[in-house]
Amino acid sequence: MSPSQVLDGANRQVFLGTFVHSKSRAELEYMHNTAVYVDEHGVIAKVQKSGSDTVEETLKNLGWDAASVDRHVSTEGQFFFPGLIDTHVHASQYPNVGIFGKTTLLDWLEKYTFPLESSLKDLNKARRVYSACVRRTLAHGTTTAAYYATTDVAATNLLADLCLKMGQRAFVGRVSMDNPDLCPDYYRDESAQASAELTEQTIQHIQSADPGYELVSPIVTPRFAPSCTSEAMHHLSTLQRKHDLPLQTHVSENKGEIALVASMFPESTSYADVYDRHGLLTPRTILAHAVHLTDAEADVVAARGAKVSHCACSNSSLTSGAARVRWLWGKGVEVGLGTDMSGGYSSSVLEAARQAALVSRHVAMGEEGGDGHKLTVDEVLYLATRGGAICVGLEDRIGGFEEGNHWDAQLIGMRTVGSGEGEDGEGEGEGESEDSNVDLFGWEDWEERMAKWLYGGDDRNTKKVWVKGRLVHSRRGSDRQSK
Amino acid sequence: MSPSQVLDGANRQVFLGTFVHSKSRAELEYMHNTAVYVDEHGVIAKVQKSGSDTVEETLKNLGWDAASVDRHVSTEGQFFFPGLIDTHVHASQYPNVGIFGKTTLLDWLEKYTFPLESSLKDLNKARRVYSACVRRTLAHGTTTAAYYATTDVAATNLLADLCLKMGQRAFVGRVSMDNPDLCPDYYRDESAQASAELTEQTIQHIQSADPGYELVSPIVTPRFAPSCTSEAMHHLSTLQRKHDLPLQTHVSENKGEIALVASMFPESTSYADVYDRHGLLTPRTILAHAVHLTDAEADVVAARGAKVSHCACSNSSLTSGAARVRWLWGKGVEVGLGTDMSGGYSSSVLEAARQAALVSRHVAMGEEGGDGHKLTVDEVLYLATRGGAICVGLEDRIGGFEEGNHWDAQLIGMRTVGSGEGEDGEGEGEGESEDSNVDLFGWEDWEERMAKWLYGGDDRNTKKVWVKGRLVHSRRGSDRQSK
Repeated sequence: MSPSQVLDGANRQVFLGTFVHSKSRAELEYMHNTAVYVDEHGVIAKVQKSGSDTVEETLKNLGWDAASVDRHVSTEGQFFFPGLIDTHVHASQYPNVGIFGKTTLLDWLEKYTFPLESSLKDLNKARRVYSACVRRTLAHGTTTAAYYATTDVAATNLLADLCLKMGQRAFVGRVSMDNPDLCPDYYRDESAQASAELTEQTIQHIQSADPGYELVSPIVTPRFAPSCTSEAMHHLSTLQRKHDLPLQTHVSENKGEIALVASMFPESTSYADVYDRHGLLTPRTILAHAVHLTDAEADVVAARGAKVSHCACSNSSLTSGAARVRWLWGKGVEVGLGTDMSGGYSSSVLEAARQAALVSRHVAMGEEGGDGHKLTVDEVLYLATRGGAICVGLEDRIGGFEEGNHWDAQLIGMRTVGSGEGEDGEGEGEGESEDSNVDLFGWEDWEERMAKWLYGGDDRNTKKVWVKGRLVHSRRGSDRQSK
Repeated sequence: MSPSQVLDGANRQVFLGTFVHSKSRAELEYMHNTAVYVDEHGVIAKVQKSGSDTVEETLKNLGWDAASVDRHVSTEGQFFFPGLIDTHVHASQYPNVGIFGKTTLLDWLEKYTFPLESSLKDLNKARRVYSACVRRTLAHGTTTAAYYATTDVAATNLLADLCLKMGQRAFVGRVSMDNPDLCPDYYRDESAQASAELTEQTIQHIQSADPGYELVSPIVTPRFAPSCTSEAMHHLSTLQRKHDLPLQTHVSENKGEIALVASMFPESTSYADVYDRHGLLTPRTILAHAVHLTDAEADVVAARGAKVSHCACSNSSLTSGAARVRWLWGKGVEVGLGTDMSGGYSSSVLEAARQAALVSRHVAMGEEGGDGHKLTVDEVLYLATRGGAICVGLEDRIGGFEEGNHWDAQLIGMRTVGSGEGEDGEGEGEGESEDSNVDLFGWEDWEERMAKWLYGGDDRNTKKVWVKGRLVHSRRGSDRQSK
C-alpha cells in the first residue's frame, strides 16, 4: 500500500453533535449542535456552530455532493474530543509496562530496559511488540506519538512502516547511544560516526515511505547526555539542522543522573547547558522530564524555544521527582504530556493527564502556600492536546477543531446507569450493557462529565478514533452507540 | 429471600489451578497445581498443594460426593486471588467520583458532599446510587467493604439490604453528625441523643436481617470529631461497647481540619486524643487517613489496637498529604486500604493499591534518604487483602486461602497478545478478542505478571468474584476463558 492510498481517497465526512476542545490553557470550550466538515484529505473544511445554516445548506455552499458524504453523529452523552498526543514514549519498552520494581533511573536502565530494547533486533519480536504498542495506544485515543525505537535501523524502520500502515501520526526516532562508559557492550552504536550514519538511514527510509512527512516523520534522538559522546551529539545536531527535523532527548530526570552528567561534562554549567553547547536546544526539541531544572536552565530552555514533555506517571513510579508545570509555564516553556512507557506504567495519555493532576498536588503539598501549583481538569486536558501539539510542532494542524486543522479526533461515550426502579434495583439498567468504568447518573453538567471522564475513563470510553480523517480504531460494539 | 437462603444451600466446590496470596507483608506466595475445596457454607475445607492426592482421592477423604461438586479451573495465565477489602468507602458519594475540582477537605464537604448525601433520603435515588455502587465494587473484586451511608436510617438500612441481597460482605454505618457548628441545617442529627438512637435503629435492622452478621454487620460511625458533639461521641462509645461492634471514623486527614479540631477540643492534646478521651479508640476502630499523625498519636493508636485505613488516592486528590505506611507499621499500627470514594476518584481497591505504591514514592522523595518508605507490589497487595482483613477484624476468615477461611476470592485473567506473525502483524492475534488493558507477551514470570496486573489491570481482568462461596459477579464472556 502506498502512502497516498493510506492518506487520501477517503470520502468527505461531516461530524455532528457536541465537540469539546481547549479554548485556552485554563478553559475547555463546549460546542453543542455543531457540525464539522472534513474533506477528502482529512482536513477540516468548515466548523458550523449551532443556529447557523443546515447541513444541507452548508454542503451546498461547500459544493459537496450530499449523497457521497459520510455522516457521524455523537449521541446523547457522547462528544468528539481532539486525539491525544503522547510527546514521549518508548515503543520498544511496551512489554515492560508496570515492571520496574523498586529501581530508579540508572539501575532500571541496566536491569529492565537495555536487555529488552536490544532484543528487538529480532524483527519478528519487534513486529509483535510494535504492533501491540500502536494498536494499544490508538485504542487509548493517541493519534500522535513521539516514539523512541531502539538503536537498530531495521526495527526502527519497521516501527515507522507500522505507524504508517495502522494510521497513527508519529515521530519515529532511532535511539543514538555510543558512549561505552554508560552503554553496555551488547547495546550501543559502534562510534559517534555510526550514531549519525545509522540515524541518516532511518531518515532516508521514512522520507521514501512518506515523502512529505504527512503522517510519519523521523526525529533525531540522542538518548540522553550520559549515553552519548560529545562527538555524537555534535553530529546529531548537524543532522538535525541539515534536514530541519525535530529532535528529542531526556533532561534532568533524576538526581543521580544529574550528578553523573556534571561529572561527565565538567565544562558545562548545567545539564541543559550540555545540550545547549552541542546545539541540541532548538525550537524543535522535546525535552522529556525536566524535573529538577534550575531557574537558569529553564530560562535557557525558554530562550531557545525548546519544549518539555511532562511524564508524571514515570516520575512517580521511578521515584524521580515531581516536575512543576505551572512553574515551567511561568518561565515561558511550553509543555505536553508523555506516558514515558515503560518508566510510566500506562500507555494511556488520559492516565498521564490524571497523573499530571495528582503530581501537581504533590508539588503543591511540598511547598508552604503551594496551592497555585495545582492543575485543573481543563489544564491537564489542554496539556494532552494543544500542549502536546505545540511540543511536536504541529499546533497549526492538530490539537483542536479549527478550520484548516486535520481531523485527528476521538468519539467519547460514557454510559448512564439505570433508574434503579426495578425490583431492588440491583439489576442492570438501560445503557449498562455498554461496558465502561464510568457511571453517569444523568444529572451531571458538562464540566462534571469531563471530570468523570478524566478521572475514571479508559479506552472503553474511546469509541472511535480518526487520524487525518481516516478511521483508525473502532471499539467492538461501538456502532450501536455512536450512530 | 431470607439470609439463610442467601448464605447457604450452595453446592460444594473445588477450585483448581494457581492461587496467589500474601505469605507475609513482604511476600506473595504462588501456589500452582493446587486444589481448594469449599464446603456448602462457603468455607475452605481443604487446601491441597501439588504433588499430593488427586482430586478424586481428596473428595473421597472428605466424604464428598464427587458428582455433586462444582469444579472451577484457572486456565493458563489465570489465577485465583483473595477478594479485595475496601476499609473506607462512602457508598453515598459514589455518583461524585472524579468530581472534586480544586477543593480541599472542608470546602469539598460543603460544596459536593453534604448536598449529595442529604439527597439520598429519597429512597428511589438511594436505591439507584447504592445498587450502582455495590455492583461496581463487586465488579472490581471488592468482596468486603466498610461503608459510610448517610444520616438517614431508611437509606442506611436499604444499603445493608442491598449488600445482603447482592452478596457483598459489608460493614454498613449510619453516619452520625450532630454538631450545628459544622454540619449544615439541612443535613444533621437533631441532637446527640438522636445520633445514638438513630444508629441503634440501623443496628436492630441489620440484626434482624442477618442475625449472626454472617455477611453484613452494623458499624458505629461518628463522621469525624468536628461534626460530632462531645455528648454524641460518648453515646456512640457506649453503643459500641454495648453491642461489641466495629467503629469507623476519620482522623488527621488535612491540616485545616487538624487546626479546627484543636480549636474545638482545647482540652485534648491531639486529634487522636479527642477520640481516646471519648472511648472511641478500640481494637475494633478503623481510622481513615491518619496522614499527619504525630509520633505520640501513632503510639496511642497502636496502644489501643486501633487500625488505619490508608486512602492514598483521596489524599492526593484533595491535596491532604501523604500518609506513611511503613512508619505506621513501624509504630505497630495495622493498615488496610480505602478507596474513600468520592474523596478518592476510583471505586477500585486495585487502583487504591497502585496509588499507595505511588504515594509511598512521594513520601520517599520528600525525605533525604527516604527510599525505605517505598512500598513494593507485594506489599500493596498485602494491604489490599490481609491488611484490610485485619482492619475489619476478619483476619481469621478472609484475606488469604487457609483452611477454615471463607471463600472470598476472585479469578484474575490477562490476555497474551498474538505472535505477530501475520501479514505486518497489526491484526488481532489469538487471545485478543478478550478485552483487557494488560498485554502479556508470554515470557513474563509470575512476579512480572503480578506487577502488570497491579499497574495495568482493571475490572476487565476480574473474571469472577465469590463471597462466602457464592458467585456474586461474573464478567460477560468470562465462561469461555475460565472453564
